[in-house]
Amino acid sequence: MRATLMYGTGDVRVEDVPDPVIRQPTDALVRVTASCVCGSDLWPYGSMRPEDGPARMGHEFVGIVEDVGSEVTTLAKGDLVVAPFATSDNTCEFCRAGLHTSCGHAQAGFWGGLRDGGQAEAVRVPLADGTLVKLPVPPDSALMPSLLTLSDVFGTGHHAAVAGGVDERTRVTVIGDGAVGLLAVLSARRLGAEQIVLMGRHRARTDLGREFGATDVVSARGEEGAAQVRDLTGGRGTHVVIDAVGTLAAYEQAVGAVRPGGVISRVGIPQYEEAPIGFGSLFRDNIRLTGGPAPARAYIEKLMSGILDGAVEPGKVFDATTDLDGVPAGYRDMADRKSLKVLIKP
Amino acid sequence: MRATLMYGTGDVRVEDVPDPVIRQPTDALVRVTASCVCGSDLWPYGSMRPEDGPARMGHEFVGIVEDVGSEVTTLAKGDLVVAPFATSDNTCEFCRAGLHTSCGHAQAGFWGGLRDGGQAEAVRVPLADGTLVKLPVPPDSALMPSLLTLSDVFGTGHHAAVAGGVDERTRVTVIGDGAVGLLAVLSARRLGAEQIVLMGRHRARTDLGREFGATDVVSARGEEGAAQVRDLTGGRGTHVVIDAVGTLAAYEQAVGAVRPGGVISRVGIPQYEEAPIGFGSLFRDNIRLTGGPAPARAYIEKLMSGILDGAVEPGKVFDATTDLDGVPAGYRDMADRKSLKVLIKP
Repeated sequence: MRATLMYGTGDVRVEDVPDPVIRQPTDALVRVTASCVCGSDLWPYGSMRPEDGPARMGHEFVGIVEDVGSEVTTLAKGDLVVAPFATSDNTCEFCRAGLHTSCGHAQAGFWGGLRDGGQAEAVRVPLADGTLVKLPVPPDSALMPSLLTLSDVFGTGHHAAVAGGVDERTRVTVIGDGAVGLLAVLSARRLGAEQIVLMGRHRARTDLGREFGATDVVSARGEEGAAQVRDLTGGRGTHVVIDAVGTLAAYEQAVGAVRPGGVISRVGIPQYEEAPIGFGSLFRDNIRLTGGPAPARAYIEKLMSGILDGAVEPGKVFDATTDLDGVPAGYRDMADRKSLKVLIKP
Repeated sequence: MRATLMYGTGDVRVEDVPDPVIRQPTDALVRVTASCVCGSDLWPYGSMRPEDGPARMGHEFVGIVEDVGSEVTTLAKGDLVVAPFATSDNTCEFCRAGLHTSCGHAQAGFWGGLRDGGQAEAVRVPLADGTLVKLPVPPDSALMPSLLTLSDVFGTGHHAAVAGGVDERTRVTVIGDGAVGLLAVLSARRLGAEQIVLMGRHRARTDLGREFGATDVVSARGEEGAAQVRDLTGGRGTHVVIDAVGTLAAYEQAVGAVRPGGVISRVGIPQYEEAPIGFGSLFRDNIRLTGGPAPARAYIEKLMSGILDGAVEPGKVFDATTDLDGVPAGYRDMADRKSLKVLIKP
């Protein structure tokens, strides 16, 4: 079969690889019908060392079950399923607590690297019963782009808002106008946020952000951007600041825009390890820090219902579609910000 | 009157200073009947530069109102009052939200430095109506040591537990066997914590910690100490880790002892600004960070009732008493860990 591999910075290739096979009795084989490129794929695309590759790519996909191992009980050949971006057994103490990304099972983990990735024709899915969720629509459903966002970006935007404690008394700043930032806006809106300030400078994206529920847009960055957020909020900043970027600059912007007693909710993968958290940044005003990889699995059923009943259309974040051959160009277009998010039909 | 001043590292003096006077109509003058030395006073005691002094010292006191400004309505001469470690108007949006340490009033702030301090014969109290709370006991009450802890250490220990979300399903680690750490143990116990691991190595203190509710004591530090906490908790770590120290080493110990999805609650003043918070420390497992200066004012009435009805005796953290002349020796004894906490009767 064909799969996407990253060999190093800016070097994405689609190559023939061995077909996946069932290895564990809890595995399923899934033929991918839709996948996509993630903003987080752009981090290695911009900095990966050749010695860390080649790495299978893609952690978001929908597909049809082709085969299942002997211990798989909830899935059968022909089922249409969506995969969250981490495998999990859905039964351990962390899964039961809704933290599937910290599942304690030895086969739990993230897609890609030495594992199969979603930007391919097929995927071996470990812990299939715990990981995959059936979709109650045909594979050619018009809802497919939105359902595909359940793999990651919708769940991640939702996690950002939930972890931040957004409710109807909350003012929210969202840093970043990528797919996750925009779906954090949508999620904050659904949770009733009183005010949602979107920080971004790409007009088509911030327009979609307004459609999703942003009440204000701030294009300035850094201290100037944070000052504009404070100006929009009586000088105080917002109760919640969602970092949907992951750079140190975004974190520092969040510190500048958050209100005393407020919370910075991070879902963009941090591209730094050390950052200011002492008296002058977080401690003085009891600023809290939360977030991490979204337990997308925990949110799929709940978020899916909003898609099925037409309440939300998170699939609007896809503004380009390609086949597998077009994946390298898809990466390039996203890195160049020509595309917001590229859907792949293998 | 006489007051305590710090001139630099290890240089604490008790000197004659001008008597305080009413300056604002919202001021009160309080004659101090009991105050104390705080673990946080030991940070400047260990590192203060002479050019930052001399600084008035002391942010915990009980006393008798001697005079009030024309706009003070809730206090009168002769009232016995306790002062939290920050002044606040108790009416602004932050105070109404229970975050008195971020009060927006221009006269809100911490004691000491260029302001009056509690380790003195008298104090000018700004925002007296908002700051001071009357004590319904005589000045010679046997409850006085416990009531004095409402100024800071009891409220701070309570804040650590509340900010961490401690409840009856929670396992807690408390790093630090100083007064705040011990009262965090007591507070976690009152909130019903299932298990409380106290990390400390001073036997008399950890024995008091056991009396306050610690179920386990770990004397090892660093990664070895964190590993012992994980061993005590099925390899997972605890849901909440309270940092009642404030060093970078204590923070790193907290990261090692916290459970995935758990929370690090800091109340020891951070002696660092930058620290690890990226993928490898907090982000990967959705570890949250909370805490800051306790809004002690917010907790006084509630915590006082437990003292008055005999349910708790936080005043047990005092193991030495002195007059003003003995304050410099009190600092030295606390720095040398000969005294846990020194009560001052001016």
